[in-house]
Amino acid sequence: MSETLFTLGAGPVDLYPEVRAAFTRPVLSDGDPGFLSFYERVNDKLTRALECSTPAVILQSEAILGLEAAAASLIARGDVVLNLASGIYGKGFGYWAARYAKEVVEIEVPYDTAIDPAAVEAMLKKHPEIAVVSVVHHETPTGTLNPVREIGAVARRHGALLIVDAVSSFAGMDIHPEDSNADIFVAGTAKCLGGAPGLTLLAVSDRAWAKIEANKDAPFASILSIKDWRHAHRADRGFPFTPLMADMNALDAALDRYAAEGPENVWRRHASTAAACRRGAAAMGLDLWPRSEAIASPTVTALKAPDGIDAEAVVAEVLRRHGVMLSAGSGELAKKILRIGHMGPTAHPIHAVLALAALGATLGAMGAKVDIGAGVEAALAAA
Amino acid sequence: MSETLFTLGAGPVDLYPEVRAAFTRPVLSDGDPGFLSFYERVNDKLTRALECSTPAVILQSEAILGLEAAAASLIARGDVVLNLASGIYGKGFGYWAARYAKEVVEIEVPYDTAIDPAAVEAMLKKHPEIAVVSVVHHETPTGTLNPVREIGAVARRHGALLIVDAVSSFAGMDIHPEDSNADIFVAGTAKCLGGAPGLTLLAVSDRAWAKIEANKDAPFASILSIKDWRHAHRADRGFPFTPLMADMNALDAALDRYAAEGPENVWRRHASTAAACRRGAAAMGLDLWPRSEAIASPTVTALKAPDGIDAEAVVAEVLRRHGVMLSAGSGELAKKILRIGHMGPTAHPIHAVLALAALGATLGAMGAKVDIGAGVEAALAAA
Amino acid sequence: MSETLFTLGAGPVDLYPEVRAAFTRPVLSDGDPGFLSFYERVNDKLTRALECSTPAVILQSEAILGLEAAAASLIARGDVVLNLASGIYGKGFGYWAARYAKEVVEIEVPYDTAIDPAAVEAMLKKHPEIAVVSVVHHETPTGTLNPVREIGAVARRHGALLIVDAVSSFAGMDIHPEDSNADIFVAGTAKCLGGAPGLTLLAVSDRAWAKIEANKDAPFASILSIKDWRHAHRADRGFPFTPLMADMNALDAALDRYAAEGPENVWRRHASTAAACRRGAAAMGLDLWPRSEAIASPTVTALKAPDGIDAEAVVAEVLRRHGVMLSAGSGELAKKILRIGHMGPTAHPIHAVLALAALGATLGAMGAKVDIGAGVEAALAAA
Amino acid sequence: MSETLFTLGAGPVDLYPEVRAAFTRPVLSDGDPGFLSFYERVNDKLTRALECSTPAVILQSEAILGLEAAAASLIARGDVVLNLASGIYGKGFGYWAARYAKEVVEIEVPYDTAIDPAAVEAMLKKHPEIAVVSVVHHETPTGTLNPVREIGAVARRHGALLIVDAVSSFAGMDIHPEDSNADIFVAGTAKCLGGAPGLTLLAVSDRAWAKIEANKDAPFASILSIKDWRHAHRADRGFPFTPLMADMNALDAALDRYAAEGPENVWRRHASTAAACRRGAAAMGLDLWPRSEAIASPTVTALKAPDGIDAEAVVAEVLRRHGVMLSAGSGELAKKILRIGHMGPTAHPIHAVLALAALGATLGAMGAKVDIGAGVEAALAAA
Repeated sequence: MSETLFTLGAGPVDLYPEVRAAFTRPVLSDGDPGFLSFYERVNDKLTRALECSTPAVILQSEAILGLEAAAASLIARGDVVLNLASGIYGKGFGYWAARYAKEVVEIEVPYDTAIDPAAVEAMLKKHPEIAVVSVVHHETPTGTLNPVREIGAVARRHGALLIVDAVSSFAGMDIHPEDSNADIFVAGTAKCLGGAPGLTLLAVSDRAWAKIEANKDAPFASILSIKDWRHAHRADRGFPFTPLMADMNALDAALDRYAAEGPENVWRRHASTAAACRRGAAAMGLDLWPRSEAIASPTVTALKAPDGIDAEAVVAEVLRRHGVMLSAGSGELAKKILRIGHMGPTAHPIHAVLALAALGATLGAMGAKVDIGAGVEAALAAA
Repeated sequence: MSETLFTLGAGPVDLYPEVRAAFTRPVLSDGDPGFLSFYERVNDKLTRALECSTPAVILQSEAILGLEAAAASLIARGDVVLNLASGIYGKGFGYWAARYAKEVVEIEVPYDTAIDPAAVEAMLKKHPEIAVVSVVHHETPTGTLNPVREIGAVARRHGALLIVDAVSSFAGMDIHPEDSNADIFVAGTAKCLGGAPGLTLLAVSDRAWAKIEANKDAPFASILSIKDWRHAHRADRGFPFTPLMADMNALDAALDRYAAEGPENVWRRHASTAAACRRGAAAMGLDLWPRSEAIASPTVTALKAPDGIDAEAVVAEVLRRHGVMLSAGSGELAKKILRIGHMGPTAHPIHAVLALAALGATLGAMGAKVDIGAGVEAALAAA
Repeated sequence: MSETLFTLGAGPVDLYPEVRAAFTRPVLSDGDPGFLSFYERVNDKLTRALECSTPAVILQSEAILGLEAAAASLIARGDVVLNLASGIYGKGFGYWAARYAKEVVEIEVPYDTAIDPAAVEAMLKKHPEIAVVSVVHHETPTGTLNPVREIGAVARRHGALLIVDAVSSFAGMDIHPEDSNADIFVAGTAKCLGGAPGLTLLAVSDRAWAKIEANKDAPFASILSIKDWRHAHRADRGFPFTPLMADMNALDAALDRYAAEGPENVWRRHASTAAACRRGAAAMGLDLWPRSEAIASPTVTALKAPDGIDAEAVVAEVLRRHGVMLSAGSGELAKKILRIGHMGPTAHPIHAVLALAALGATLGAMGAKVDIGAGVEAALAAA
Repeated sequence: MSETLFTLGAGPVDLYPEVRAAFTRPVLSDGDPGFLSFYERVNDKLTRALECSTPAVILQSEAILGLEAAAASLIARGDVVLNLASGIYGKGFGYWAARYAKEVVEIEVPYDTAIDPAAVEAMLKKHPEIAVVSVVHHETPTGTLNPVREIGAVARRHGALLIVDAVSSFAGMDIHPEDSNADIFVAGTAKCLGGAPGLTLLAVSDRAWAKIEANKDAPFASILSIKDWRHAHRADRGFPFTPLMADMNALDAALDRYAAEGPENVWRRHASTAAACRRGAAAMGLDLWPRSEAIASPTVTALKAPDGIDAEAVVAEVLRRHGVMLSAGSGELAKKILRIGHMGPTAHPIHAVLALAALGATLGAMGAKVDIGAGVEAALAAA
């Protein structure tokens, strides 16, 4: 018996009931024509959810595989890459880029701010040789959004290919590969889609495919290969290796749920939950981590831990006292940031109320000056 | 609605009911102390199932990841590797070995036979510089077993490290890492354990760890890294990236089931099912693919397709007529081999009867000379 | 761990995967408007499946409740009831009828035959005072069908109300309340619908409602009441008591599955499975229990146990040897009849093959003269 | 997609994850020896949970069946029954008692108070002919407890048999059949055990068995029969009719969970949740319905709806605004009472916080004078 009653952190989140039910479906074998056509149908659903004109690609592990594979496949040995770092994930991607590129140039901004598209433009003008730009749409560790549509437009204008990490934003807000001119767009199953970690969902543009196919160093016969899976969704092809059947069943249900509820409705839920969370946190006396609300994510609200209070200790104590699992920060910011997730099944304002109540009471008990009642009231009023 | 009523091929197999039930458990987040200690407990159960003295390692995708990671981590740039190829999988591993090694020498034998340990000994004497030996215990595509215990003893005597692919034999018969002197032993979840594909299970010897840690080219910060996960099972450590929670729930149940039934009982079930299958096939008039019963696997029975009959067409027809999903061969042997799996939940003699009945009727309808009744009777008698 | 691998008896059968998945859905409370409207939708689906012009009624326990409630509600103290007994269930219903009626007259025929509609006509002419006729459509214990359409036409002509027990035939063949002029038609969830026992499904004609409402002794404020539930399916009404939510979730999925596959397709599957079973049994040397194939049910095949062999011992032995659960007979026929069910998820010819193979092998081992191979071949050929 | 995110009313509650998982187990047939022994094991677990010296009895529908069956079986035609009515359920039981008894005498008290054992004693002295006393332990509609231990002692002293309705208190607090001298003790599966409605759980004393067996009018061959099921749990007996297998699987898991967590721990959780709820409600400005905290149930907190506000409208609005399903009152009190359940999976203080936050915000929006913040803070502080 777990002590955890509510998982309300920055992901993974618990499953939608529909996804959970799908995990009980029979597992077929990878050679079964029924499975082959099922896989193709799921891939089609995904392509529609991504609002994509080329077939989506599913890789067979957690979303981080999609990111590593994108770097390994798209970046050629002679490439100059512009990596945009407004947080820990963006910074980290730069290290992968550096493995494959000739050179990585970087725009790094403080982790409570966002990348300025004008700075990207300036850099691309200065370095017209830049072949690939990489950006994280939603910096999960700090709850900040980058303006990927604007960045994408700039990159496209300059002829650079764009890699977008949308793992924790896709399906929680209005962001898609072609809107943002992404050439590789990486999403996951365990965040706003309300599924389990197990698969990573990619959109690859025709331009990216051309580059990957031409890239002699692009992985093949490897878990890291994107191109091995380019046509794997077709019912008349086999798979490079055994796909994760149970996870495919779950993905199917997550995509059905997303379509049935209606993407706009889902995004609205995420947005209103985050808004209620921010209102409540402010009334409680807590400061938002992002420097402005304009860049605060609708899928994760990052708050500054009150002075002198260790965020990791707070998270442990909220769980112990109330059975509510939140998230602290990551890396060097681990002790400074408190995070409440709003993703898929937990993206309802009442979840924000619940999270704030548990957080407020714990902070109060740990000596922080918080007005719990005011915070909960404000969140409820915004709900 | 799938047409498939029974999945009786060479894997994946359908789930044990206990595993299916486990997939409905809540998904916790990767920072949850409840999940951290759960992961450690599952890893301990796995270590016990592997009869291992060092903690097992779980990697986060299908078993093929374990094999690629083993090659990438253990084989250093200056190594000479001896690859043993008695089938398609062994042959394939050689290509991975060649990516990382200075040189790969190979012993290849016809795919209906097994590797002779004496030949390995001879090769190791001839090439004392061989640092790593790689072998597939059970060649799933052809249903043949290699004598890994004997090969392991030889390798150890010569100071070479041994990589064993036991993906489709572990948990279906008495084979373990230390019995066979394996330095990296790779197993999966979706074969004899009766789970879903999603994780790969590794045993790594102290000698292998020493080599991996010393190998500058061993992957790190990568899905392909073994060493990133060396201590990840410890509840006081975090994970390199989000583990596949739902798949961990399933693995937990599969390991519990294996322990509760008793490994010896499980192996006995597999052996008696394969024996009944071989008896029945022989009585039906079908020939075993392996040249001798002594090397026939207890987890997959591979049969020769009757002359002039295409195994792939047979498999499609058995499914269409009877709702039973078997397997054809792989690669160049695709049309020549018919395979019946005996793995986990399908390793009961009555499953072999069922498979043979459906296969026999279909072969008969396709013009083969088979004695269906005699075959079914013989399988039943052996049950 | 159960020893039972396949449940192939006369019911309950194991669940369709869709039903199993539905059992994992959240359970709402009985006052929840979401549950109220869900219940109404399920009732509508049921009404359609029953091809009924009045709303169906769901009672909250196994199908036997529907039968007892029908007797208690429809039969008034002054009624003369004609009970038709062609088997154990029909005979049993007479005892219930006798509790509520002034008098019960009975036509009883040998349990391997069916009721002759002409005999019913003669009886109704002789006893024009007969108000209610009761008949079992499918005598599950003996696998025989009564001609309820013809009997219903006779009853209607004579102005008698008809109670039909269609528990083990509805959804396995083309039988419906209005086809058969049934005034109360009782079905279940755990037979051909492939659900779990838990609910009983009733169609009640307007004539029956009129009589029930007029019957002062009809149960109310009781688990046995039909009329308490007459309008309970309406989303604007409450329930007499808490309905079985989880079982309603399961029923919803069973009805969806039935509609999606198409009733005619489902019936065809049942018919072809029973036909294959009869062909196989005959070739094996076993005799059908029903005197003619014309009255043999498509949902249960009842066979005579070979001379000198105890059917109950056979069933136990088939389970022990092969993990296949069949059914023996009931009551005084327990030791004389062997039954193979063809219901919902087990209504595929290959299931009949499987059942016959296990049965034949066991009978052979117990000394019966059976030609197992011929039987299996014949069943396969008919598949 | 239901709008209901949290079911926090007076039951049924949503399932424990363990129960949900158990619903995916295979369904065996009622003649399967594996099912027969499983049923016996579950009955043994239930007997232990009831702390009973005679084997428990399981009847095959919702708890209301247990109550009706108790009245029908235990009360003989010549009996005088003392019915104790401190609420709607107690009052209702009197009508059942009246169906079977010669005479029913009643002690009725206002529905915000409890029965005084001294009054019971006085009545039994005055009417020494009273054979049966009936009492509801927890009046779910009003959240009040009766002192059944004291009442039981009095009844025993006077030689009367006692029927206790403990449907919504058993497993949520320290109450058992023999503690309270109950002769028939009726519990359910869908309240504090955290299962689904489907079965009713009875403890029957030797004295009650003697009376039932002697009672010629006690139901038999009926869904209402207790005695049909007296020995049905024994693996060497058959069942009177098909038990609800899927619900038995669920009950098994609910009982395992109860034992694993430890009954005392479970009761403590319920008590502390109710205490937090009462503290919070009081600070919010809401009045408890029970006249004193001493008789307030740990499993349901009943509050007075503020003056001029319709409780049913509040419940609908809380659901619409926040996705939280609470309960209004029942019958004539439907509009006057607001109820928050604390049962099984929802018996954690944080659930009370959640319920109060949603309730308070809605009441505020509907014009009630409530201090939401203070209420939530007080509940959190008591957590």
